[in-house]
Amino acid sequence: MEKFFYAHSVAVVGVSEDPDNLAQGIVNNLLEFGYQGKIFLVGRRPGTTFGLPIFAGLADLPEPVDLAAILTPAPSVPALVEQCGRLGISRVVVESGGFSELGEAGRALEDKVRALLTKYRLRLVGPNGLGLVNMEIGLALPFSHMRPKPRRGNISILAQSGGVGMHLLAWMAREGLGLNKFLSLGNKLNVGENEVLDYLLKDPGTAAIYLYLEGMQDGRELLRLAQGSAKPIFLHQPNVGPETAAIARSHTASLSSDETVLDAACRQGGILRVRSQGEFLVGAKLAAQPPVKGNRLVVLSRSGGEAVITAYACRQWGFELPALSPRLVQLIEQRARSGVIRPTNPIDLGDIFDFSVYSEVAAALCRDPEVDAILINYGPLGESERDGAREAIRAIIATAKEAEKPLAISVVCTLDEEDYLRESLNFPVFHFPGEAVRALAYSRFFARRPSLRLFDTPAPLFQAKEAAAVLSAAPGGDFLPLPRALAFTAALGITTAPWQAAATPAAAAAAAASLGYPVVLKLSAPGLVHKTEVGGVLLNLKGTKAVTAGFAELSSLAREHVPPGEPWEVLVMAQAAAGREILLGARRDQAFGPVVVFGAGGVETEVLEDVALRIAPINEAEARALIAETKIGLVLAGVRGLPPADLKALGRALVTLSQAMVQFPQVQEVDLNPVRVFPGSPGLLALDARVRVG
Amino acid sequence: MEKFFYAHSVAVVGVSEDPDNLAQGIVNNLLEFGYQGKIFLVGRRPGTTFGLPIFAGLADLPEPVDLAAILTPAPSVPALVEQCGRLGISRVVVESGGFSELGEAGRALEDKVRALLTKYRLRLVGPNGLGLVNMEIGLALPFSHMRPKPRRGNISILAQSGGVGMHLLAWMAREGLGLNKFLSLGNKLNVGENEVLDYLLKDPGTAAIYLYLEGMQDGRELLRLAQGSAKPIFLHQPNVGPETAAIARSHTASLSSDETVLDAACRQGGILRVRSQGEFLVGAKLAAQPPVKGNRLVVLSRSGGEAVITAYACRQWGFELPALSPRLVQLIEQRARSGVIRPTNPIDLGDIFDFSVYSEVAAALCRDPEVDAILINYGPLGESERDGAREAIRAIIATAKEAEKPLAISVVCTLDEEDYLRESLNFPVFHFPGEAVRALAYSRFFARRPSLRLFDTPAPLFQAKEAAAVLSAAPGGDFLPLPRALAFTAALGITTAPWQAAATPAAAAAAAASLGYPVVLKLSAPGLVHKTEVGGVLLNLKGTKAVTAGFAELSSLAREHVPPGEPWEVLVMAQAAAGREILLGARRDQAFGPVVVFGAGGVETEVLEDVALRIAPINEAEARALIAETKIGLVLAGVRGLPPADLKALGRALVTLSQAMVQFPQVQEVDLNPVRVFPGSPGLLALDARVRVG
Repeated sequence: MEKFFYAHSVAVVGVSEDPDNLAQGIVNNLLEFGYQGKIFLVGRRPGTTFGLPIFAGLADLPEPVDLAAILTPAPSVPALVEQCGRLGISRVVVESGGFSELGEAGRALEDKVRALLTKYRLRLVGPNGLGLVNMEIGLALPFSHMRPKPRRGNISILAQSGGVGMHLLAWMAREGLGLNKFLSLGNKLNVGENEVLDYLLKDPGTAAIYLYLEGMQDGRELLRLAQGSAKPIFLHQPNVGPETAAIARSHTASLSSDETVLDAACRQGGILRVRSQGEFLVGAKLAAQPPVKGNRLVVLSRSGGEAVITAYACRQWGFELPALSPRLVQLIEQRARSGVIRPTNPIDLGDIFDFSVYSEVAAALCRDPEVDAILINYGPLGESERDGAREAIRAIIATAKEAEKPLAISVVCTLDEEDYLRESLNFPVFHFPGEAVRALAYSRFFARRPSLRLFDTPAPLFQAKEAAAVLSAAPGGDFLPLPRALAFTAALGITTAPWQAAATPAAAAAAAASLGYPVVLKLSAPGLVHKTEVGGVLLNLKGTKAVTAGFAELSSLAREHVPPGEPWEVLVMAQAAAGREILLGARRDQAFGPVVVFGAGGVETEVLEDVALRIAPINEAEARALIAETKIGLVLAGVRGLPPADLKALGRALVTLSQAMVQFPQVQEVDLNPVRVFPGSPGLLALDARVRVG
Repeated sequence: MEKFFYAHSVAVVGVSEDPDNLAQGIVNNLLEFGYQGKIFLVGRRPGTTFGLPIFAGLADLPEPVDLAAILTPAPSVPALVEQCGRLGISRVVVESGGFSELGEAGRALEDKVRALLTKYRLRLVGPNGLGLVNMEIGLALPFSHMRPKPRRGNISILAQSGGVGMHLLAWMAREGLGLNKFLSLGNKLNVGENEVLDYLLKDPGTAAIYLYLEGMQDGRELLRLAQGSAKPIFLHQPNVGPETAAIARSHTASLSSDETVLDAACRQGGILRVRSQGEFLVGAKLAAQPPVKGNRLVVLSRSGGEAVITAYACRQWGFELPALSPRLVQLIEQRARSGVIRPTNPIDLGDIFDFSVYSEVAAALCRDPEVDAILINYGPLGESERDGAREAIRAIIATAKEAEKPLAISVVCTLDEEDYLRESLNFPVFHFPGEAVRALAYSRFFARRPSLRLFDTPAPLFQAKEAAAVLSAAPGGDFLPLPRALAFTAALGITTAPWQAAATPAAAAAAAASLGYPVVLKLSAPGLVHKTEVGGVLLNLKGTKAVTAGFAELSSLAREHVPPGEPWEVLVMAQAAAGREILLGARRDQAFGPVVVFGAGGVETEVLEDVALRIAPINEAEARALIAETKIGLVLAGVRGLPPADLKALGRALVTLSQAMVQFPQVQEVDLNPVRVFPGSPGLLALDARVRVG
């Protein structure tokens, strides 16, 4: 990526003298941003534009170039890429659209280009994107207008959509947020998000990253990269459902993600998932500030009302407003006109007209190790106060910087002070104090990101050989027969209710007698996944007569529902004692690989929607956290008068399941539901199991 | 209020020649806003400022005035108010602070002023506020700077905090949102929010209202006013918890609200509760648009990425993106370069460079009755496109207005177009499409506000006489003894499990025999509210021996926990069949009066937090909606294989409870928990009851 972002010379391909020529926009941006390298123009017809000659072909350039930026009709791109290969131009940016996002013909063009990249060992950004920007050297390759012009700073933007990226750059400029590097991924034919992310995480110029994606190349790798860095990553991935799937496919040929998995992955990776550009713009305002390491916020406010709003935001975002230290109380009481100010937190300085009180109080807060962050809501109420107010805010910014104390500022009443802070002091300012609290919470999220690495896998908790044997003996494809699914579950060390298979009514009765009444009969057949729905589960059978009758019932059900020739069998299972029901599950996500699921089980699963999940594998601490995320988990931890469930056994079951998903890639899905849980031994008992392999 | 907002002349009291004089700010604003009435200045020392003479007293003014705006130290205010009374100045605005928000001395000053208001029949806005503004006549009484200056429009602002109000006015101006009237309530000594709200709801100049409150005078009345009007009300009330309580008390002497009650009240009143100023600014951008009556949104986007983001927002906010009509598909296919555009919704026009396609498609959408709202994401990619793009957007705005179709616009890439729309077309523009979708959802909320009036009370469902008798016979104060609480419950028509009181072990055994085993024994004593915690409930007693032993156990418990001399008794209750447990409750909210609560019951109540509530009274439809808001309600409606509970009986119980709370103001709290529910008859059985009167 270095050679892309720090190219010494650029050839812009697709330029003409026509005033509507889009590639002129690239040239215009390079000139306007003061690109420090050499610029060469290439077009079909020789000519001049921006005072630069247009060469008829890449081969005609007077010297070799580092990078070619191509904006020509899609069908012409393969030949141009081939030319780059021949001429040793190893970095290519293609901004043209008309590739895989438009279907078969475009996909074929991409295949052609891909082959050329391999042949000539080239790297390509795009197609169907807006190229890249490096503010450090004025390299600005987008063909579209950039108004207002980006400022240089420490935030880098990686966007699959050029339009979204450009729009964000404009807003960053307006909000006083400085840009370091920008890259528009487009169709990700060659360069993908993980490669660029890896580069930006190591890039000294980049302090925080915004990542807009419509699809994920390899979510697991993205997680690994994020876990290996302390830089804040804001991920904006809106393509997570049927609403967005079609438009995202036609826009950047991307597949949608599962939102619950995406959220879990972000939490595990210490990535902040934003749901809008606005959320990022708020969070980015603290990119130049030290991280917020704790919960203790002190608020200084010129407006009592804004102080109340700030306190509400603290409630929303989980900040404490600790009582002020006695020294600070004394300071405020000395300096305030008697009785006007109460030394609460938020500190309402609404009736203080001497702004040096602000700077003195803020300075004391900066020195206080018990304060994790400071929020100031400042503003002069009239012209006469302005100079004093500005002097105070300058002093506060300097003091906080020196003390390395996180500082967020919002203004009150007049917006002139917003402009002053942003434009004259280069200090991004929050429009409202609630936004400042939100940004402080984001910073705290990054400061507290989990130290656990996903791939620090603990030693397996189960006998892998036994589980492997069960799987290998299984017929390929789709769902395992119930006996085998139960055997797999047992091999993972998860106790199942005792059961026996029975081929005849008499065998069923014998099995029931040996298991002890009451029993449950279950019909098992390969195609019969939802056996409860068709009446394939008979509960609470109490005696030989009920069991033989039940067997007959299931036999006739089998004749009705199981295709002729397909095997079926009847399982006799000891009926478990009453207890709460949970589900333990696992599946494979297209982007993030294996995930493990915990939640409320039984017939209410769908209605309660009380489930949580993690990217696998997990360790026991993570499993306990997963359990505690659900309501059923809180109930199982023990409520008034009721003993807690065996959470340790539950946690181990989840860890095992997560490890098995990593160990056995052929297992697509595990669904143990219901699993009944008990305070004593056994802590849990799986009553049913669905395991899909393939 | 009319006389406040349309005063023909104003005396500004507290003016001096001193450049730091705050009251000069009022004069400055009146002049700057072009006040159409007469301005008189009053101060302790005669002089001149802004070319106007300063009179030494209100009595010295050359003619009577409609309104006095006072900004002098608090102790001087009562004498000034008295002067107003004597001079017949019936409208007074006090901007000075130093009253009840600062404690006892200030409260005494307010009492003095209050007496004068009664004596002279004056009306007063404030104190401790920023007065009021009426853009229609240039009446601008705040003493603080207003930068940028408000524009005239159709939104009115009613704010308890002057600072919050001023800050919002500045942002409205920056966002292109026009102000009609503003009033800062301050301490609400005389004029409160309901009176002003009532006025603004009837005010022809006001189309939408933002209401910032830190405490509520009379929430029930506010609800009644809101339900009687079709105007959108955005309520910002952040003082809802311990975090905000202290600062709000010292700021405007306000008491905090219960957040769950506030949320329920807003839903019932069709009031949109906003949690930040930003949410209001987003919603207000559609104040000049027709209401969004349905769910069907069509999105036209210049950027594919912004289209994906828009579709995600539709997922968040519950909008459908219906398929385009065949006519529209045909139109797009004809006009688009072949193959470049797929006629999906969102429509990605990213590669259309002819902006007349936008206006044609938008015009077709405006004519389509199947489209409830249109969202356009527009923007030229370069200078050459600008004129065409602007022409198109002007045409679209005009067409939508004519067709009365709600239209939201966001821009892409360059922010110049935001400025153009806002400044040249006076059309508020959304910064990001997600904000536009949010605003459309707000508009839909208002369009769908419930037609039910809270006070359209249905006929009582219970025998009021019987319930009244139970209550009247009860000793005053605190919790009713359990037998009486159960009798009250039964009088409301809510079946309780059969029970008998027993004074001796033998009587208990006899009661148990007559009720049928198993039984439950409960210890009842006035001070013993949480009897389960101390072991005062014995479950599942199966026989005489167990009952007599249980009686002995509860007797010794009573000796331990019940103070000597206080009565206690033992209740024998038939043990109910197993079933799901719910809670039915009611209490009185300080702002909104009686509320009724439904939720998951039993020992898990606190952990599950699965409750919902309504302001009482409610009818059966509302009760069913209340039940359906909880998870337990969904479970009771019937899940896979299980029969539904008797929701009709549940609904009736809630209606009854809500009616009883209205009928019997002495009932402070009712807590029926657990109530066991069954599919058959009786649909529900209250097993315990706590009723607090006072």
